[in-house]
Amino acid sequence: MQEQLWPHIQAVRTHAPLVQNITNFVVMNNSANALLAVGASPIMAHAHPEVPQMVAICQALVINIGTLDEYWSAAMLLAATEARRLGKPWVLDPVGAGATPYRDEVLTQLLTLRPTIIRGNASEIMALARHNTTATKGVDSTAASTEAVAAAQALSDQLGAVVCVSGEVDIIVSGERQAHIANGSPLMTKVTGLGCSATAVLGAFAAVVADPFAAAVAGVALFSLAGELAAEGAAGPGSLQVRLLDTLYSITEAEFMSRLRLRVC
Amino acid sequence: MQEQLWPHIQAVRTHAPLVQNITNFVVMNNSANALLAVGASPIMAHAHPEVPQMVAICQALVINIGTLDEYWSAAMLLAATEARRLGKPWVLDPVGAGATPYRDEVLTQLLTLRPTIIRGNASEIMALARHNTTATKGVDSTAASTEAVAAAQALSDQLGAVVCVSGEVDIIVSGERQAHIANGSPLMTKVTGLGCSATAVLGAFAAVVADPFAAAVAGVALFSLAGELAAEGAAGPGSLQVRLLDTLYSITEAEFMSRLRLRVC
Amino acid sequence: MQEQLWPHIQAVRTHAPLVQNITNFVVMNNSANALLAVGASPIMAHAHPEVPQMVAICQALVINIGTLDEYWSAAMLLAATEARRLGKPWVLDPVGAGATPYRDEVLTQLLTLRPTIIRGNASEIMALARHNTTATKGVDSTAASTEAVAAAQALSDQLGAVVCVSGEVDIIVSGERQAHIANGSPLMTKVTGLGCSATAVLGAFAAVVADPFAAAVAGVALFSLAGELAAEGAAGPGSLQVRLLDTLYSITEAEFMSRLRLRVC
Repeated sequence: MQEQLWPHIQAVRTHAPLVQNITNFVVMNNSANALLAVGASPIMAHAHPEVPQMVAICQALVINIGTLDEYWSAAMLLAATEARRLGKPWVLDPVGAGATPYRDEVLTQLLTLRPTIIRGNASEIMALARHNTTATKGVDSTAASTEAVAAAQALSDQLGAVVCVSGEVDIIVSGERQAHIANGSPLMTKVTGLGCSATAVLGAFAAVVADPFAAAVAGVALFSLAGELAAEGAAGPGSLQVRLLDTLYSITEAEFMSRLRLRVC
Repeated sequence: MQEQLWPHIQAVRTHAPLVQNITNFVVMNNSANALLAVGASPIMAHAHPEVPQMVAICQALVINIGTLDEYWSAAMLLAATEARRLGKPWVLDPVGAGATPYRDEVLTQLLTLRPTIIRGNASEIMALARHNTTATKGVDSTAASTEAVAAAQALSDQLGAVVCVSGEVDIIVSGERQAHIANGSPLMTKVTGLGCSATAVLGAFAAVVADPFAAAVAGVALFSLAGELAAEGAAGPGSLQVRLLDTLYSITEAEFMSRLRLRVC
Repeated sequence: MQEQLWPHIQAVRTHAPLVQNITNFVVMNNSANALLAVGASPIMAHAHPEVPQMVAICQALVINIGTLDEYWSAAMLLAATEARRLGKPWVLDPVGAGATPYRDEVLTQLLTLRPTIIRGNASEIMALARHNTTATKGVDSTAASTEAVAAAQALSDQLGAVVCVSGEVDIIVSGERQAHIANGSPLMTKVTGLGCSATAVLGAFAAVVADPFAAAVAGVALFSLAGELAAEGAAGPGSLQVRLLDTLYSITEAEFMSRLRLRVC
């Protein structure tokens, strides 16, 4: 599989897909910059009167509930409904899943619209599965990473979605298929919204790669490896963020192929 | 004309004009930082109960429709109405003009309030002219840059506004007068919201320079040249953004005068 | 007192307090990054249906009215009410106090909910005191820094709050106690939202340090000194912002103790 990933990265650069984002206020700037750096073209629009048309002109949709409220939730549902109707891929980032009943209600509604890819950290994926599947109920005492895999598996099976769990090792689950990516850096957790930016980048890959599992693996691999390279020599989280955008933009096939630590099961 | 530009840049630094911005979520931070870097003082406020008072205490207003919605559109109309009533300069950035009917409706309303300066990319200026003038109808097949000039000319004539078209060469049109600025860098298109930041900076120049055409030329010249200098030695879009703010803050008369490629017709 | 400050900084790093922020659009990213850099964990949420629960799971609340509107003001009041009910510390940044009657009305309501710490610049603290105490009325002609101390004193006495006035010298007032911190850099005023980020950081300290005065002194000392160190060798405001996050993350006890200019009265 590793050999197919670089062509996907090049495809994003070549096709420059238009990606519509309804995302949170904290990360809008980073996410737009991450999309530009990988070669995609971001649109950020949430007004109800124009959301369906924006979805129609884009090749993929990204929804991130980080700073949701009633107006924004309705915009997300409108957009996801339209994406589904048009058969366009859409990616969900369930930020803060499980933190409040309100978030969980909105997420439950969004899940009925069948996201193509879901990306979150272990606790978000576990919370999402607890509320929306029966498979992982009552297994709260299982160790975190193991449980996140089980939760991801349950979500993937039930929704037919690709589910990505970020962490020290990123795990991508799609039905029978599973990929583990051991790139990244702990310093990435000290920059706000890098997970959200990764999700935005998945939108670009979903737009140009027909197989959502391959799209997710390529996008996660690129983002985590760029973060790892950027962290080397970074003086702290401020410079990491700057270097990450530079690296997403300039990373070469040689760097990518020599440094990627991918295992597909 | 070139000799008059540096004094305008110094005037912004000396007078530190207060510039009220109703802009989009993606670029608020960059735009505020760009205004601070050139020596102006940004205010970002959109609440209906205070918008008229904010306009009253500022020397210029900037409106950018990037992430508009019903509440924000109403705030923009309120603010532009007040700016016009008080005879204060205001600058419009028609982000995404032509992308949806909703955007075009809001833009049509805003244009009735006579912006002092309009700044957009070629496709935005062309879309704006198509919907709001008769001059450019039916010329969709003309080559892009040529058509953008015709569209800018039509908008300028009809509205009495200065119209700036950004691109490889930036073009500023005001009635009979036209200026071309051949500075900048292609890497600037890989950073989100640099056009929006340029528009914000035009607000600062409109606040302190009596002639809106001179204000627009000075602001565009400073921004594009600073971007060009920042791109030299930048490792990618992340470092470009950082270096651009540094350069806007520290650029000297000698750098400005020796590197500017301005042609006035 | 100086010896107690570094342990407070370490306590934030060790306990990684969850800090709920209802802040302005311009600075959300910076503020979240500043909180992460000092070792805290930021949450940004404003939806009415979930605000009380978010406050309940956090150790402190930060409210910043920079880009307030009707929905956000109501969220702020909801959150502060809940923080007060639960006895959790909360920090107020009265951005633009005095600029419009709308801001002052919202601030008056917020003050009735007794913020633990208030942080603003001299003119904001003076405006806040003018509208909300009787002590400083009619003293508009007093020199700015002196008047800000009197205003801070009046606010502190009336509300039982710690009041921080930022400036060339930062002043922290709590009843009889007063601390002056002579760190920082003028270049910090050329980066948007550094004051707002400082306020966010105070939330982290209020969460882990029992004495709000000590919390405020430690937080202001860390932030202003990190800004001073970051400004040394910064090429302008762009690099200052990057270096500030790096420094907040990596500053050592030796740097802190040798460079701090603190005077407690």
